[in-house]
This record gives sequence, C-alpha cells and structure tokens, in this order.
Amino acid sequence: MKKILISTIFVEAVGLAALMPAPWKVDAAPGKLVIDSGFSVAATAYSDARLNSAMSRMVSRVSRQTGIPMREGSSKPELLIECREGGTQFPSLGEDESYRLDVSPDNARISAITVVGALRGLETFAQLISPGADGFAVPAIHIEDHPRFPWRGLMLDVSRHWMPVQVVERNLDAMAAVKLNVFHWHLSDDQGFRVESKRFPKLQEFGSDGKFYTQEEIRQVIAYARDRGIRVVPEFDIPGHTTSWFVGYPELASAPGPYAIERKWGIFKPTMDPTREETYAFLDAFIGEMAALFPDVYFHIGGDEVEETQWKQSPAIQSFARAHDIASSHDLHAYFNRRVQELLKKHAKTMIGWDEIFDRALAPDSVIQSWRGQGSLADVAKKGYRGILSFGYYLDHLKPASSHYAVDPLAGEARDLDQAQASRILGGEACMWSEYVSEETVDSRVWPRTAAIAEWLWSPKDVKDVASMYERMESLSRMLGWSGIEDRSQSMLERISGGQPVEPVRILADASEALGIEGRRGVRKYTSQVPLNRFVDAVRPESETVRRLERAATRIAAAPSALTTELPELAELRVKFTEWAANDARLRPLSKDDILVAELLPISRNLSVLGSIGLRALEYLQAPESNSGSWATEQIRALEKLQTPGAEVTLAAARPVRILLEAVAQKGSNK
Amino acid sequence: MKKILISTIFVEAVGLAALMPAPWKVDAAPGKLVIDSGFSVAATAYSDARLNSAMSRMVSRVSRQTGIPMREGSSKPELLIECREGGTQFPSLGEDESYRLDVSPDNARISAITVVGALRGLETFAQLISPGADGFAVPAIHIEDHPRFPWRGLMLDVSRHWMPVQVVERNLDAMAAVKLNVFHWHLSDDQGFRVESKRFPKLQEFGSDGKFYTQEEIRQVIAYARDRGIRVVPEFDIPGHTTSWFVGYPELASAPGPYAIERKWGIFKPTMDPTREETYAFLDAFIGEMAALFPDVYFHIGGDEVEETQWKQSPAIQSFARAHDIASSHDLHAYFNRRVQELLKKHAKTMIGWDEIFDRALAPDSVIQSWRGQGSLADVAKKGYRGILSFGYYLDHLKPASSHYAVDPLAGEARDLDQAQASRILGGEACMWSEYVSEETVDSRVWPRTAAIAEWLWSPKDVKDVASMYERMESLSRMLGWSGIEDRSQSMLERISGGQPVEPVRILADASEALGIEGRRGVRKYTSQVPLNRFVDAVRPESETVRRLERAATRIAAAPSALTTELPELAELRVKFTEWAANDARLRPLSKDDILVAELLPISRNLSVLGSIGLRALEYLQAPESNSGSWATEQIRALEKLQTPGAEVTLAAARPVRILLEAVAQKGSNK
Repeated sequence: MKKILISTIFVEAVGLAALMPAPWKVDAAPGKLVIDSGFSVAATAYSDARLNSAMSRMVSRVSRQTGIPMREGSSKPELLIECREGGTQFPSLGEDESYRLDVSPDNARISAITVVGALRGLETFAQLISPGADGFAVPAIHIEDHPRFPWRGLMLDVSRHWMPVQVVERNLDAMAAVKLNVFHWHLSDDQGFRVESKRFPKLQEFGSDGKFYTQEEIRQVIAYARDRGIRVVPEFDIPGHTTSWFVGYPELASAPGPYAIERKWGIFKPTMDPTREETYAFLDAFIGEMAALFPDVYFHIGGDEVEETQWKQSPAIQSFARAHDIASSHDLHAYFNRRVQELLKKHAKTMIGWDEIFDRALAPDSVIQSWRGQGSLADVAKKGYRGILSFGYYLDHLKPASSHYAVDPLAGEARDLDQAQASRILGGEACMWSEYVSEETVDSRVWPRTAAIAEWLWSPKDVKDVASMYERMESLSRMLGWSGIEDRSQSMLERISGGQPVEPVRILADASEALGIEGRRGVRKYTSQVPLNRFVDAVRPESETVRRLERAATRIAAAPSALTTELPELAELRVKFTEWAANDARLRPLSKDDILVAELLPISRNLSVLGSIGLRALEYLQAPESNSGSWATEQIRALEKLQTPGAEVTLAAARPVRILLEAVAQKGSNK
Repeated sequence: MKKILISTIFVEAVGLAALMPAPWKVDAAPGKLVIDSGFSVAATAYSDARLNSAMSRMVSRVSRQTGIPMREGSSKPELLIECREGGTQFPSLGEDESYRLDVSPDNARISAITVVGALRGLETFAQLISPGADGFAVPAIHIEDHPRFPWRGLMLDVSRHWMPVQVVERNLDAMAAVKLNVFHWHLSDDQGFRVESKRFPKLQEFGSDGKFYTQEEIRQVIAYARDRGIRVVPEFDIPGHTTSWFVGYPELASAPGPYAIERKWGIFKPTMDPTREETYAFLDAFIGEMAALFPDVYFHIGGDEVEETQWKQSPAIQSFARAHDIASSHDLHAYFNRRVQELLKKHAKTMIGWDEIFDRALAPDSVIQSWRGQGSLADVAKKGYRGILSFGYYLDHLKPASSHYAVDPLAGEARDLDQAQASRILGGEACMWSEYVSEETVDSRVWPRTAAIAEWLWSPKDVKDVASMYERMESLSRMLGWSGIEDRSQSMLERISGGQPVEPVRILADASEALGIEGRRGVRKYTSQVPLNRFVDAVRPESETVRRLERAATRIAAAPSALTTELPELAELRVKFTEWAANDARLRPLSKDDILVAELLPISRNLSVLGSIGLRALEYLQAPESNSGSWATEQIRALEKLQTPGAEVTLAAARPVRILLEAVAQKGSNK
C-alpha cells in the first residue's frame, strides 16, 4: 500500500482525476475493478428506502457515466454497502457522515455508520470511475473519509431571478457530488416571494408574478434533498428586503402602500413595522405554517441591510421607540429580532441570520452567517454563539475558484480561537445571489467553482494545492454533466450566433471571462426584466482554455530556446494563437445585422491582436533577435489596453501572452 | 412585395436561415416584428384545448429560444391565430394542413382551416425568429403553405435498442418542427417486445428485459403526438421478426421452444405458425387490445424478411400447405396476411406492411411501405393499391443528407404514372433501425438529416438546391436544441476523454464521419449488449466542419493566386489545417491508459498529415513553385490511404484537401 497526497502527481499517478473534495486518507493498491454491464450494488447490513433508492440511482448513474447498459439482477454485486443505521429522519447538523471505501479487483465495499455516510461514499466511488486500458474501471484503493466542518452549504437566491424546481434539483445532485450538506434557500426578497402560503395567499399571489413553489413542490424538493443527505434551510429575509410581502399585505410595512414588486437591484426602503403587534401576529402564523413545511431545525430570518428611512419617517414608530427606550434603528432591529426569536422558539426552530442580527440579547443557540469575515465570526464565537462563513464565498462576484480556495473559516482573526470557540464555527456556505443570474445561467455561475469551496470545507486543512484543485475541478465539471448540470452548455452561444456557425463566437468566449456583479451594475440599466441572454451571460467566470495556456506558457518560458520545439505545449500555444489571430476575420461577418455579435467587435479585434503577438513571442523565444527584448517590453505595455473590458467580459487571453512576453523581454535583454 | 425562391441567396437576403421545409410561396416585405418580453399569442376565432396548449407552448418556446423572460397577460397579442375548426379528434391521413402566415412590423397572423394547419404555421413562425440589429425579430413576410404529400413519417425501431418515453417525445417535437405527421413506432422485433399487453402479459414480461411502454405511457405519447399534429402508427412485425413473442408464448412459433430474446443482429428463423387456428385466435385478441389502444386507422403488420426454414422443417405445416393447395412459402405468407387482414378489418383497422406482403388478394385499401424502391411502388399503384416510400430514406446507413434529398417518391419508374395512380403514392418515411443506435446516440442519427427528407416530402418539387438545403439544415439543427434534441451534444466525447481536455478528441470528431450499418457490422461482434459508447458513436454521420471547408476550398481553388490572401476563406482553412496538423501531438498524451482514445491513434496521425498537406497546398496556391504540380499529384494518390476507415469512422477531412490539391496540380501544370 502506498500513501498518497492530493497533488498533481497524485492525480496523474492514480488517475483520481475527478476526486473532489479530496478524502482524508487515501492508500493506493495495485489493480483495478472493471465496470461492465454486470455492475450492481447491494446492501449487506442495514438498509432502508433511502439507501435502496440511492443504490438504484447509482446503477443508472454508472450506466449513464460509462455508456454501458446494465443488465438487471446480477448474481454477484460489485459494490457492497455496509451501513449501521438510518440516521435521523431528515439529515441533521452534526450527523455522522464518515465512510470507508475499499476497492479491490474483485469488488468494492463502502462502510459507514449512517446512510448519509454511505451516500458520501457512493459519490466518491462514482468519481473514481474512468476509462482505462481495459475500459471503464475504478482503481484499487482504500479511503477513510469524514468532513472537517459539519455545515457545508450553498445558498441560492430564487427571488431576484426565479429558479424552477428542476434547476434546484439538478443543483442538489451536484451538491451531493461534492458532499455539500446544506441547501440554503433564499425564498423571499424585494423582487419576489417564492413560496405558497395557504394562510396568507396574497404573499405569492401578489408578490411572485406567478413564479413560486407550491407546498407540494417544496415537499418534493425537501424529499429530493433528504435522499441525497442534504438539509434544506429556508430563508425569509425580514424585516428589510420585504417589498414583495407588502404588495399583498401593505399593513406589514412601516409606511403606507401601495407597494409593487421591485424590479431593480439594490437596497430598498420598504421595511416591516417592528412596533405593531399585528406584525408579530402575522409572523407567528406565517412562521408556524413554514415551520411545519420545512423539517430542518434551523430557520433563517435574513436580517441584512435593514434600511432605516421608513422607521425614521414614521411618527408612530419613533414614538414607540421613545416609549420603549429604544435609542437607535439598530436597537429597534434588535428588538424585532428578539420578538421573532420568541416566535421561532414557540415553533421549535433555531434562529439563523446574517451578521446584522448579532446582539448579545439573542438566545445562545443562534447562528450567525457572516458576510463580513472571520473577524466578525471570531467575535461571535468568543461570545458563545455559533457561526458560519460566507465572506469570501460570494459566487456572484465571479472571482476565480482559487480566490475562494484561499478562504478558511478558521483563518485571520479566527486563528487564535481556543478549541471550544473554534468548534462553534460550524463551516460555511457559498452564496449565489441572483441579480445577474437566471435559471439558464445559474449552473455556470455555481459550478464548478463551488466545488473548490466544498473541498475547503470537507478536506483536511493541508489540502491546498491550487494546481491540483484546478485539475480535479475541471474533471469534476465534466462529470457534473452526468447529473444534468449545464455549466458547459453551448446553447447560449448558438443563440447568439443565430444559426450561423458558432465557432468564432465560441473561440472568443473560451478566451474571455465574464464580469461579476461589481463589473456589471454600472454598465447598463439592469432590472429583473432585462434578458440575460448576451455574450457575457454565456461566458464562464473562469476560462479553462486560458488556464491551460498559462500552464503551457510557463513551461515554454522556463525552457531553453533550443528545447521549446520539442515540447507539446508549443503546439498547443501555436494552435490557439493561430485561432485567435484569425478569429476576428471569421467573427466579423456574423456581426452583420446581429446585435448580439456586433457588440463583440472591439474585444474580437483585441483577441486577434493578442493572437498575433503570441505567435511572434513564440518565434522570438525560439530564436531571439537583437530587438526582441524591447519589442516585448513595448507589447507588455500594450497589453493593458487590450485587456480593457468590453461587452462586460475581460480577455483572459492576455495572461498567457504576458507570460511569454516577459520571457522574451528577459531573454532578449540577456542576449 | 418581392417573390423569393428558396436558394442560398434567399437565405442570406431575408435571413430565413432555419426555414425548413421551405414553404410553397414566400413574399418578403420591408420591416420586421420585434420579439420582446411582451410577446404573446391569441386565437381570434375557433379554439380548443389543443390549440390553447400549442399557444402556451409557443410562448415558452420563444422565451427559451430568445432567452427573453415573457411577461404574463400582454394586452396586445403579437401573434394571432385564426383557425376554422378543430379537425378530426386524432390527426388523420389527408387532414388539411395548409396555413397562411402574415408578419408585419405590428403583428403576425396565422390563418388555417384546421388546428393542425395552425400548428404547422406556428412552427414556421418560430423558425423565422433570429437575432438582428434590434435584437430578436421576425422579418415581415407573407407565406402560403401546404404539404406536397399527405404521409410524411419517421419510423423508429425501439426493439433492437430501447428508447425511453422522453427520447420519443423530444423526437416528436423535432418531427413537428419539420412538419412530419406520422410517427411509425416499430414496437416489436426479435430483440424485444416493447408494449404492455394486459391480455398477454408474458409478451412484455418475458420479451422485453423490463424495457417496455406501459399502456398509460403509450396513451401519453399518443396524446403528445396528437398535440403536435402527428399520427401514431404502431408496427407489430409478423410473422417473422417475432422471437421476442415466443419467449413467453412458444406455442405461437412454427417450431417447439424454448426461445430466448435474440441478442444478435440479422434475420432469424423463429416465425409464427400460420397454419394453426390458435395463432389467429391469439392475434385476434391481441390486435383487438392494441386496436383499442392506438386510435389511428392504420395498423402496421411488418411482414418483411420472413425466413422459411421453420416452415419447411415442420411436417405439420407442410401437410397443411399440401391440403390447402399452398404451393410455396410465399403463398403461405400471403395466406397468413389475408387471415390477419380479416382480423384487422374486424377491429376497424386498415393494413399497412412492407413490400413483402404485397399480393393481389389483399384488400384494396391496403398500404405498402416500400424499402425496395419506386419500381415496386409504381407496380403497387398501378394495381390500385396505395404505397409510401422508404427506399432511399434509411437513416441507419448514415449516408449524407444530400443522398436522401435526391430521392423522390414519384421519380424513376413512378414518373410515368397517371394522375390517379400517382395520387396513390401517399408520401414516405425516414427509417431509423436501431442495431447501431441507442437512446444516447439516436438524436444525432435521426437529426438533422431527417429534415432533408421532411422537406422533400413537404415542399414543392422544384425546391432542390442542395447548398441551400445544407445551409438551412445546419441552422435548423441548432434550433432543434431548443426542443431538447441532443444531436450536437458533446457529452459522449467528454466521456471518451475521461475528464481530460476534450478538445483534441473533438477536433478529430469534427473532421470524421461515422460509418453506418454496412461499415460496422463486419468490424466487431456487435450484439444488443455491446455498449455504443465509443468514438464512432459520438461522431456524427456528416461533418459540418468539413462541409464548410469544402465550400471554402472550392472558392480558394477558383480564385487567382494573387487574390486568395484577401479571402476570409483562407483564414478559415489555415486555422483548421493548423489545428489538424498539431492535433496528433495533443491527442496522443490522452491515449495513455484510455482504450477509448487509444483506438484513435491511426486516424489521428492521418488527420495531422492531412493538416500539413493542406497547409502546404495553400502555400502553393498562393505561390506555385515549379515542382508543385507533381507534388500535388503525388499527394492526391496518398489521400486514398489517409482516408482508410479506422475506429469505424472515415476522415472526411480529406475532401477539402483534395479540392485544393487538384487546384495546385492544375495551376502547377499550367506554370
């Protein structure tokens, strides 16, 4: 047995290409288990409906993933599951998720305490399948695994853009693939109230444009999540972010109505009236209804970005504050939270909310979700409360996966916590706010980058090799396609090219990276009614193509001139640069009478310039000329302009070109 | 108003890129109707549940196709439908399918006699939407349209490879898009019996490996087809091709059992016993059950490839034949057909079968489906029977769309029929036999080539410009993606590259064309249990990339040397040849330990050679050298070897290279 580290070498050596998050202990062994049409799964000890359905899902998943039709009723199962108990009825915080996986050339065995542990092991098994010299196989291996943090979540905002049930379900499949265990469902906000309330039907009737989940659908999603070992935590954001509630129930607001569903993005004034008893009566009934619908103990009340204008302008509220010795809007918010917490307690729920709700008067079992950072979280933990981190995990900024991968809930100010305090930091959540994300684009915004966050929350802290992470994340992204995730779909590009050949648009897209919320909000007047069907929406946040070229360029740059011709990286760079250099001539004809292509012309031209510079740089690296150094220095200066964002994307293509130019500049000056 | 012909010029001029089949009359007008989030559809005259559901499907389709979220309840509908009547309860042969479509900058109007006609008009409208200078729009236009033939079908074999309901349904959507109106469902064969029979449950229990449609699912598919104006004609192939029936009911066979589901491909001996009354009693009850399930008047009894061995070897059958003056196996088959026809008549069904059932003793309303050709069909028509053509429309040969586009039901021996005889030739059907086609690959085998057949059967006979057909077919293929058709999916290539970068595999696939049934059957031992997950299964029958390059090469070859540098086609050819030339170096590393890639090495090497030859040819075309003519002649000879099929595909890439080489040879010799 050979102990292996999760590194690039590990990936190449053992072929564990898509293993993510990395397990705590991996021992490789010789040989492999071949997957053929006789593949089947059986439980050898405890079993129940949930495990049975997971086993049958696994058989069809393996069939889909390998393209091998499976025969029914194999006499000798190849994957055995030994599991001790069913666990809690619905997945719960702190439930045992550990498992062991042993694969030999004869069979594979998953051992776990709970069914949820077995589910985690099944995902690991599926990730290990890859085509090999004998067809599809799993390498012989021994794995011992368990999570580092017990709360590993994904928050999805379905208010600003509506996400149908099937979008939620395929994202639950992907969450399960990377062992995330909390689906945090941001169900109401200014732009939409997304759950059917039977008690207060005007919430969805007036607040959703008809786009809401029925209670039956909610139950269906909760069951779907439960089958995959995922908790569902609902969020109803109060007292701010509540415009959509007030369309049907203006009496809840701190200023008279009427109200209309908000179509713009930002922080808005409508806020619940925290001083009227009727507000709490409403919330009591509402929370009671939702508490019965959502089985998880935790109930998220939002509480972020409470705008005080309506409070300040209301004589009634101000007089209430004076009468109750409430000195500030902050204190009024705290008063509201204490009242809401009483209601939650009455309905047997534990409160969770954003940083802003934190106050020493909260019940000690409250959980704070921090978008502010580890400092805020450390403060919470020191005061005896629990917290989870979302700072650094905001997906809507479209930052590279590496930036999320550097964020640890126990870093920074949280590093010095004692063990008891540190144990109160439960984990973290990736957050997908949906101002610039629709049901069609959400997959490519959430995946595969969320896998990097999932790994950080599950794997040992010393798993932090960025190169290995990217290599496995790319493989995983391909594998998520078998769960229906469409992060690699090209249909939006096809739409843009309007039935004309998509290739030039695709080449440009592969060389670009989409801007996130910060880069987009100033560019045009976005509202919830502006279609997200443009190039930027089809372009992914991180370019795989460019990442590969950066790696190739680094190797070429490091090699002596005479040797570069031998390197396969040279062929790759030359092909891509040639494509880029010629691309503007191919894209330009498509732009005629197609506004979706026409807006790409400036960056398209820049890409072709980058291609030509790259080709020239490769030539100079193989045969430097006397003036190549100064040429390179000049080009480096020109790069900045070529990278100016256009059509709300940046040309990532400049990065590998810069690497080569810097090498030319150096070699040229050495000459 | 400007009358326009369906030609390449028409496509470019009016932007009717995806209009297929071409309408009978098109008048272009100035201006266009812009599609925005207020798009909605309303009926102005007759309406019913089917039309209502088609209108609401159209709104979501347009929303999906354009990426524009649609607001509900627009006050001023942009698309009005005026339709006179609902038509027959289920679509029926000869039902009026004509429609008119008028689009102005203000709105669009579809007028039709029947709801089915309106459905056809809706598909035309959707095909006209494309991105333009003002965003998505439909050009102002006047269209008058109706079908040339009343029977325009697609036959799908779900016996040899199982096709789940969702595969059938998305293909029904695609059929509707190209105005096909008959779904011929080949439901039983030696390799599987695919319908639930409540009367004879051992048919599906023993004959299907659990892969069959419940009667509820059958009804669902029929309703789905009806909603799209498509008839469903079931085929139960008897008396041959019946092994799967005999697993549960061996007493139906002409030789004692036991029987097992057939796993191999070919013509097999098990055949129904046409001499026992019990056979007809069984068929009476079975046909009665199925006649009630399938509402269409036509009932397909197959009747092809009846193997006589069991009949010859059975003393009982031979003595029956002697006793009844039946001289040959052919006559015995005819006797069987007459008996079956009586049963069909009893259950109010009209018989349709393959060429082999044709016999003057058949009832005059019988329909013959001809795989033999127009001669056979002309013979049928002259004798007063009706027929449809499938000769030349067999999709499983993976022939180019152009070859199907040249096949006319009224050509050849059918050309000389008088009007009454010609009117008995009802149309044709594309046939998708599924020996080498699985649920995963069927979309790319059926689409987009079937669109060429659909156009031939719908459009005026003089619409036959192959270049225009291909241009529109490519656009249509992209548009079918919005109906869920996966003919352009890359997931199978991703599987082959096993999580490694798919690009080199994709470049090879785009330069290749898959072999059809004739080319594959000898290569390895295929059975129904061999996975169809290899490169050949992912490669499409016709390469769009190569077709574009052929067009580019033709233009370059025709241009004087000095002018080629100015042509955008030069950039395209150079990019592709550069990709090909470098591709083997990029693909080779992926082949290590991946058998699915390893088998590609020989053709991969050949593609790179072709790329290098192509690059050199381009150089010579721009600056011929004294020896370039003889070089080219030599390379042309070498091409044949480079085209030798490998991994069950051919390198289509050789075609554009040949065009350039021939030009070099000519210019070189002129020099």
